[in-house]
Amino acid sequence: MLLSVLYIIGITAEAMTGALAAGKRHMDWFGVMLVASATAIGGGTVRDILLGHYPLGWVAHPQYLVITCVAGILTTYFARWVVRFHKVFILLDAIGLIVFSIIGCQVAMTMGLSPIICVVAAVVTGVFGGLLRDMITRRKPMVLHKELYASVAFIAGIMYYAMSYIGVHPDITTLITLITGFSLRMAAVYFSWSLPVFEFKEESFH
Amino acid sequence: MLLSVLYIIGITAEAMTGALAAGKRHMDWFGVMLVASATAIGGGTVRDILLGHYPLGWVAHPQYLVITCVAGILTTYFARWVVRFHKVFILLDAIGLIVFSIIGCQVAMTMGLSPIICVVAAVVTGVFGGLLRDMITRRKPMVLHKELYASVAFIAGIMYYAMSYIGVHPDITTLITLITGFSLRMAAVYFSWSLPVFEFKEESFH
Amino acid sequence: MLLSVLYIIGITAEAMTGALAAGKRHMDWFGVMLVASATAIGGGTVRDILLGHYPLGWVAHPQYLVITCVAGILTTYFARWVVRFHKVFILLDAIGLIVFSIIGCQVAMTMGLSPIICVVAAVVTGVFGGLLRDMITRRKPMVLHKELYASVAFIAGIMYYAMSYIGVHPDITTLITLITGFSLRMAAVYFSWSLPVFEFKEESFH
Repeated sequence: MLLSVLYIIGITAEAMTGALAAGKRHMDWFGVMLVASATAIGGGTVRDILLGHYPLGWVAHPQYLVITCVAGILTTYFARWVVRFHKVFILLDAIGLIVFSIIGCQVAMTMGLSPIICVVAAVVTGVFGGLLRDMITRRKPMVLHKELYASVAFIAGIMYYAMSYIGVHPDITTLITLITGFSLRMAAVYFSWSLPVFEFKEESFH
Repeated sequence: MLLSVLYIIGITAEAMTGALAAGKRHMDWFGVMLVASATAIGGGTVRDILLGHYPLGWVAHPQYLVITCVAGILTTYFARWVVRFHKVFILLDAIGLIVFSIIGCQVAMTMGLSPIICVVAAVVTGVFGGLLRDMITRRKPMVLHKELYASVAFIAGIMYYAMSYIGVHPDITTLITLITGFSLRMAAVYFSWSLPVFEFKEESFH
Repeated sequence: MLLSVLYIIGITAEAMTGALAAGKRHMDWFGVMLVASATAIGGGTVRDILLGHYPLGWVAHPQYLVITCVAGILTTYFARWVVRFHKVFILLDAIGLIVFSIIGCQVAMTMGLSPIICVVAAVVTGVFGGLLRDMITRRKPMVLHKELYASVAFIAGIMYYAMSYIGVHPDITTLITLITGFSLRMAAVYFSWSLPVFEFKEESFH
């Protein structure tokens, strides 16, 4: 229940960041809706396609797609407002990241998949929306360069899986994962924690 | 029957535009066949993967894949001719757009999906081939910038769904959708009708 | 058995080329693991999604994913060493190409698909890993420009299908396809054999 509310908040916030990215590329309304939806529900879509988990969430519940399209279009009118409150969006994006990761882990666990794949499903769900956004709008993919992002999804996935495995009550599992994951992401943004970067300059290979 | 003939005309024309895009990137014959096929049958492929509708059209009917590959390779020999008659291609592309949209809507309706998803299936089938072409050849995606394109697929999808729903004879539904959609697309090209564009310049947000 | 060993060698080598490509884009460790895995097991993943062949190989056998991630991360430490022995990688990549093509053909044959689709499955498995790598790291896709690559997968697919069809013993079929395909790829690299390139400069079309 809490998760459903946070999920809707999450996809709305992600759709708005997607719409802004589309605006930077001077896309039309269809482009805005496409990028907004890909950002918000693309991670879950990629996860479900990889796992063969049909029907996709938004095919079964088209209202999610309507939310992301409407959020995208509204963003074209309130872009300045969105920019002014961009710190709120960092919070909402962090919530979305953890909620998506938890849902991804849940889906893979329901399918009876192995622990590694459950954690991978968490990461894919949390991260691929932003990746798709950056690929469609031809930007440097943020999640591969900046503060801990995929790693937070990874840790959230492990926590959720481990607590479920040892039999902690689902609500408590969700709550602890949410709070820990959110705090970790916020700390990573605040202290600029990031993974080591691999810089390879040699031009001789291919 | 009419739809099958128009479908083959449509994929042939789309494959030729795909081959030209590959030629601009100096791709080899394999690249030409890949981009030609992605342009022509990529929309239906993306739709079927999203809906979990297996087997894919070209897996069940490999002759469609053969047609797009052959059309792609022939285009490398007749590129000048294709350019000279590029107005014919605008017509053929418009026919393809509507035919693809109708087929996409039909597939989703056969699967018993909700009206929103049926219309989304029409748009995805009509639009994603061109999107894939532009992503593989790293061009600015045309359908997100220029004259009404996705919108025409959207309207064609709604028309087809609505007329089918109220029980109009399938042939008449197809014919009216084809004529209306085609006219709308031609008018959009002629009068340069387009969706509002969202230009967002603020660099401060991500 | 031989095929399994060669498959693991193949995905390890492909993962290492993926990691180097990620390093050229200054990606972090997550990016390195993502590009390494996409390069190594992306071809099989695309094939399985197109054919509706679930569960995907690495979902059923997560150890393959672990291998590609570990190989990717290790490459960040041993990049200089990888570059010094880059001729070894051309050999390993050629082995991977043929092994992937054979496995792709096998999967499609097991599903009872038509000969054309079996050969397409071979090409997709052999080629799409490298294509995904180049798309994520925004490079000119190598397989569409350089020495015979997709064509070698194509010929390996035809050989494997034809020999299986006429009833040659599976081990002999695999061995002959491996040797012929590998020799052909090595010859293509050595003599710079390539497909005709289509250069289309006309700016007037779109």
